[in-house]
Amino acid sequence: MERDQRICKLDAFAVVLVASLGVNIWLVSKVFMDSTRMMTMSWSRRAAMEAEAVGAISCSGHGRAYLDGDDNDGKSEPVCECHLCFQGTDCSVLIPNCKANADGGDPLFLEPFWVKHATSSAIVVAGWHRMSYTYNDNSFISKELEKLIRKVHAHVGNAITENRYIVFGAGSTQLLAAAVHALSPTNSSAPPAAVLASVPYYGLYEAQAKLFKSTEFKFEGDARLWKNNSYANRQVIEFVTSPNNPDGLPNKAVVNGPNAKSIHDHAYYWPHFTPIPAPADENLMIFTISKLTGHAGTRFGWAVIKEKSVYERMTIFMQLNSMGVSRDTQLRALKLLKVVVGAKGERDIFNFGYNTMKSRWEKLKITFSTSNRFTLQKILPQYCTFLRTIRESSPAYAWLRCERKEDKDCSAVLNAANIIGREGSIFRAEDRYVRLSLVRNQDDFDLLIHRLNKLVTKEDGTKTM
Amino acid sequence: MERDQRICKLDAFAVVLVASLGVNIWLVSKVFMDSTRMMTMSWSRRAAMEAEAVGAISCSGHGRAYLDGDDNDGKSEPVCECHLCFQGTDCSVLIPNCKANADGGDPLFLEPFWVKHATSSAIVVAGWHRMSYTYNDNSFISKELEKLIRKVHAHVGNAITENRYIVFGAGSTQLLAAAVHALSPTNSSAPPAAVLASVPYYGLYEAQAKLFKSTEFKFEGDARLWKNNSYANRQVIEFVTSPNNPDGLPNKAVVNGPNAKSIHDHAYYWPHFTPIPAPADENLMIFTISKLTGHAGTRFGWAVIKEKSVYERMTIFMQLNSMGVSRDTQLRALKLLKVVVGAKGERDIFNFGYNTMKSRWEKLKITFSTSNRFTLQKILPQYCTFLRTIRESSPAYAWLRCERKEDKDCSAVLNAANIIGREGSIFRAEDRYVRLSLVRNQDDFDLLIHRLNKLVTKEDGTKTM
Repeated sequence: MERDQRICKLDAFAVVLVASLGVNIWLVSKVFMDSTRMMTMSWSRRAAMEAEAVGAISCSGHGRAYLDGDDNDGKSEPVCECHLCFQGTDCSVLIPNCKANADGGDPLFLEPFWVKHATSSAIVVAGWHRMSYTYNDNSFISKELEKLIRKVHAHVGNAITENRYIVFGAGSTQLLAAAVHALSPTNSSAPPAAVLASVPYYGLYEAQAKLFKSTEFKFEGDARLWKNNSYANRQVIEFVTSPNNPDGLPNKAVVNGPNAKSIHDHAYYWPHFTPIPAPADENLMIFTISKLTGHAGTRFGWAVIKEKSVYERMTIFMQLNSMGVSRDTQLRALKLLKVVVGAKGERDIFNFGYNTMKSRWEKLKITFSTSNRFTLQKILPQYCTFLRTIRESSPAYAWLRCERKEDKDCSAVLNAANIIGREGSIFRAEDRYVRLSLVRNQDDFDLLIHRLNKLVTKEDGTKTM
Repeated sequence: MERDQRICKLDAFAVVLVASLGVNIWLVSKVFMDSTRMMTMSWSRRAAMEAEAVGAISCSGHGRAYLDGDDNDGKSEPVCECHLCFQGTDCSVLIPNCKANADGGDPLFLEPFWVKHATSSAIVVAGWHRMSYTYNDNSFISKELEKLIRKVHAHVGNAITENRYIVFGAGSTQLLAAAVHALSPTNSSAPPAAVLASVPYYGLYEAQAKLFKSTEFKFEGDARLWKNNSYANRQVIEFVTSPNNPDGLPNKAVVNGPNAKSIHDHAYYWPHFTPIPAPADENLMIFTISKLTGHAGTRFGWAVIKEKSVYERMTIFMQLNSMGVSRDTQLRALKLLKVVVGAKGERDIFNFGYNTMKSRWEKLKITFSTSNRFTLQKILPQYCTFLRTIRESSPAYAWLRCERKEDKDCSAVLNAANIIGREGSIFRAEDRYVRLSLVRNQDDFDLLIHRLNKLVTKEDGTKTM
């Protein structure tokens, strides 16, 4: 009996032992496979772990830690950089009476999109990546990125790029300078070209043209004043911003004729902000990722050009100005734009952008719907070939007008209500206007709406009293 | 007896089972830990695997595949981009009679260093990294990078940066333009500043100054011709390149006096190329990572500036020209310069750079030691505070002179021997001179030496015949 029991036990033991050895074998193979996977990520692992550690730092949704942030000389992890009205090590503390900043055009409204699409938008840059001055074809321009840009335009339908030349620049900023240079007279005895823009216009055009103090061109102000002007001996270069910054209107060139050339700044010609009635097809068009993907800091833009001679002059300008755009920047733009035209399920940057901007614009309209003191710009709805529907604009900026006679300085009125806007005079308009940025991060926008609601409610109170 | 055996077996089984279970527990914990490590690398994993896969593509040591290389529209892996004289899918085929290219200054001699230091030099850029136009302090300049640059100079001892301002640019290229602007007269009624450089000089100074066709400054040629000139009413801006490009000589300003200002281009003032007798301490000094780390394509340089007003004008130029330098570029420069001042064992970029350039220079000297037809520039040895020894220069370029009366076009002489150099006239010197680049990749240098040896040997043959 005892012996039988022992034999039984022995058989059971054997079964358990075989099972355990089986598990042994399976686990060993798993460990081997995992470590092979880990091994294949050899030189990139440290960088990946650093980036993930920084990405995991919680800043309460009101800030962000960056890989190149202050890390106390390597003694700690990078610290949270808080949104404007937040403070504390984890940005959880609201600063009382903090001003609502609606000044600059920092397109952080798109940041949540990239957090959501972290996997498809990350890049790993090897230490040896593209050390040369040029790509393999001796140019400063990544052919893969150029191809992708044409694909983006074809996908959105906002510009014709077939049989057009493309030049890259450090944001639209550098391309604007290159374009003015390229459209200026080549004949040195000719008078300098007159550089113009329709009021209200983006202040950089004027500041940049003045900075260069060129003998080739001179900033001459409002294009509308030149409409019926005689400029027979003077070449005209008109900046046409469409949709316009600050007011979001679909601009057209106002100066025409044989001596008139134009630079179409289409920074905002994306479904986030405006209906796309038809692909743009002007001679010289400038785009930037800043207002497309939201990466203002990446400094990447491109020009789409019809004329070979203009393309060549712009290329020489880019070469002598900075030897093209950083290869790291081009690599990043490539990855981001791949998400824009994306693999399945990643194509939704335009849905995200449009829905966010639309919701912000609607909130703003509701805020001002009861106001007699302030009015917003009006932009007519149009059919959008991208969304396949008639839609309103959802502009990047509100172009607010103070209607009361005494409110000549609209930004002062807002400032008294703890709101920072950009004065109309910066756009060479009256200070009765002020630009409010709607593209900033959600915290900035929420505070702006909160303050504006208070201001408008007070206005009603004043009236009823 | 049989029973005893069974009991014995049972005990042995128990021991094996316990051991097996122990191994299982250990393996399970290992799998768990590994997968935790894998889990912590979540969003960066795909990018890391992509980069490692591209890094692992073999191009036979005569080429390289890049993450943004041609990938046949995503249908294949990026292809090898071969060094100039190699071809084939894996770059293993030498192109017969291929010209030895010693023209451009592509600093690929440092590429093997970064391949060796892959782990410490890789970066992972998250999709949401630094989307804003500015850093937290509203500037376009990473404070961490600025601190690190001061550390690099302190480590090498090649420049004083205490109490100096620093401005970043897209390579030294953009900073040269910013510096000329900043040193030009602010008074618009003043005549344009005369921009000068000593022959032989880097051709970009002239090309860039002419491009802008400014009313503020005008390129006026050789500084030596202005040495004793009366320029009482004219401001002078002199480019001083030290060590000089093309000839590697330690230049000093030649125009002095109250109206003379200078821009010291110290692109080559690193131990790779020259003894460092003392830290440079001029009013306006320009440096670039291009010739320090070899990342010409990254487009990153910096200016070290004494005067606040000059700093402010350069900052405005950078703002209106390109809104500063790409944040991606700054992140990469930060990582690369961390290796330069590096953790222990990583500090050897200067050893690597110096040894490579020294070995190349010595090979070149041996090649020409028997020649009567060609002479190399002579640079006096100096004490180097970095290497703590008297050392010769190991210049970036050979400045070759054809000594025979009939060899007026030295580059044509080389060209006939299948060697491409850069003509002296591009540096405003005689074409009896030619510049040969010694900083290119090893394949280019090896072929250059091979061809030069043949040329010099033939010369002996000619003589003996």
